[in-house]
Amino acid sequence: MRNIKITIQYDGTRYRGWQRLKNDSNTIQGKIESVLSRMAEENVEIIGSGRTDAGAHAYGQVANFKTNSSMDIHEIKKYLYTYLPEDILVIDVQEMEKDFHARYNVVSKTYVYKIWNDTLHNPFLRKYAEHVPQRLNIDQMKKAAAILTGTHDFTSYCSSKSKKKSNVRTIYSIDIHREGPLLEITLRANGFLYNMVRIITGTLLEVGCGNINPKDVGKILQHKKRALAGPTISPKGLYLVEVEY
Amino acid sequence: MRNIKITIQYDGTRYRGWQRLKNDSNTIQGKIESVLSRMAEENVEIIGSGRTDAGAHAYGQVANFKTNSSMDIHEIKKYLYTYLPEDILVIDVQEMEKDFHARYNVVSKTYVYKIWNDTLHNPFLRKYAEHVPQRLNIDQMKKAAAILTGTHDFTSYCSSKSKKKSNVRTIYSIDIHREGPLLEITLRANGFLYNMVRIITGTLLEVGCGNINPKDVGKILQHKKRALAGPTISPKGLYLVEVEY
Repeated sequence: MRNIKITIQYDGTRYRGWQRLKNDSNTIQGKIESVLSRMAEENVEIIGSGRTDAGAHAYGQVANFKTNSSMDIHEIKKYLYTYLPEDILVIDVQEMEKDFHARYNVVSKTYVYKIWNDTLHNPFLRKYAEHVPQRLNIDQMKKAAAILTGTHDFTSYCSSKSKKKSNVRTIYSIDIHREGPLLEITLRANGFLYNMVRIITGTLLEVGCGNINPKDVGKILQHKKRALAGPTISPKGLYLVEVEY
Repeated sequence: MRNIKITIQYDGTRYRGWQRLKNDSNTIQGKIESVLSRMAEENVEIIGSGRTDAGAHAYGQVANFKTNSSMDIHEIKKYLYTYLPEDILVIDVQEMEKDFHARYNVVSKTYVYKIWNDTLHNPFLRKYAEHVPQRLNIDQMKKAAAILTGTHDFTSYCSSKSKKKSNVRTIYSIDIHREGPLLEITLRANGFLYNMVRIITGTLLEVGCGNINPKDVGKILQHKKRALAGPTISPKGLYLVEVEY
């Protein structure tokens, strides 16, 4: 069987997240599988690089699937472009070695979290960025971000529902970039735990508002207690930017 | 009675356009009037600088209304911010002279039309820009734009439903700006006729695709026949940017 890798962009607003659900076809994975199964005239299951939350978005989610279809990659791309809904777009299709696995082979991932930081909200970004009206101290946020960068046990910064054997991950970089009222926090790591980007961003915003001292961000790491970190911020500002293999 | 000017931003996707309709409350004007009437405890009617089409957007639509309310402008702004839906935002409230009229006193208006010019569409802009996959010759489009700039009878470039006494208008500038795949056509004029921005943009795109010669754009002006110009492009890429008084 052939092994095909696809790169996917999506506006997650209308969906219940990436992962296929038993009684709800309204997921990104479900939509793609249904189009691919029709195309290949066989049951196609795709393996994503990981889940994304309901309402979260992607510029470059990656998945792979096995198929007996004889369509070439250009035909597959065209078929997907024609039959997927307008808010899910496959931007790249590649033929891979048999052993390529979109989840196991991940080397690093990049997420961006977008914040509209202005007194008034932005009517055009209400589903695409979190609105934070408070003034933010970006320098303090950068100090906190530097403390989180590196290899740590992120138990305090992931959902208590996380079931991974180890909560140790390496964050390669956290960049905080402001352009006018738009603030973008870009995180790159060898892996992210359940809700990790949303909790880190929520905590950095608490630091920016002056509610958490940057130094305490390190202490919170050491205590390994989710309750000590900031809130899990809304998924609507969250984008999976890139998956590296 | 006091005379209040408001400046409004809106994502027009969900609405049937600016103008209040008898049997449909789902218009921008209708939504604002209903909140203002509740606020002022009297029937408030607003006068917009002009209509915008169903699905078209605004960064700075302007309207005025008369009221007996004693609320100051900050309280009015706060009330509107609290009670208007998230996709309609009043960004400015000002006390005006008695004779200010948001439609009669317009000196110029600026619109922008956004185009996503890439082989693939953009899932995030599907309601906010027109997708044009063809390669566009921007230089040819600029030549055509220069011909349309100035004082002309725009009968060929407005809907045949237009009921104005005169179709002569002065376009001060048409700027065509590309940044990556995003093309923005910005038009400033002393006034725009019904569908004029959408027809001019539709025609400029025909020029960009090579279907209309830039020189013919001037001939089309002279013939005063709507059928000769390009198509009326979708409203979803259209934004009223600014109204000057």
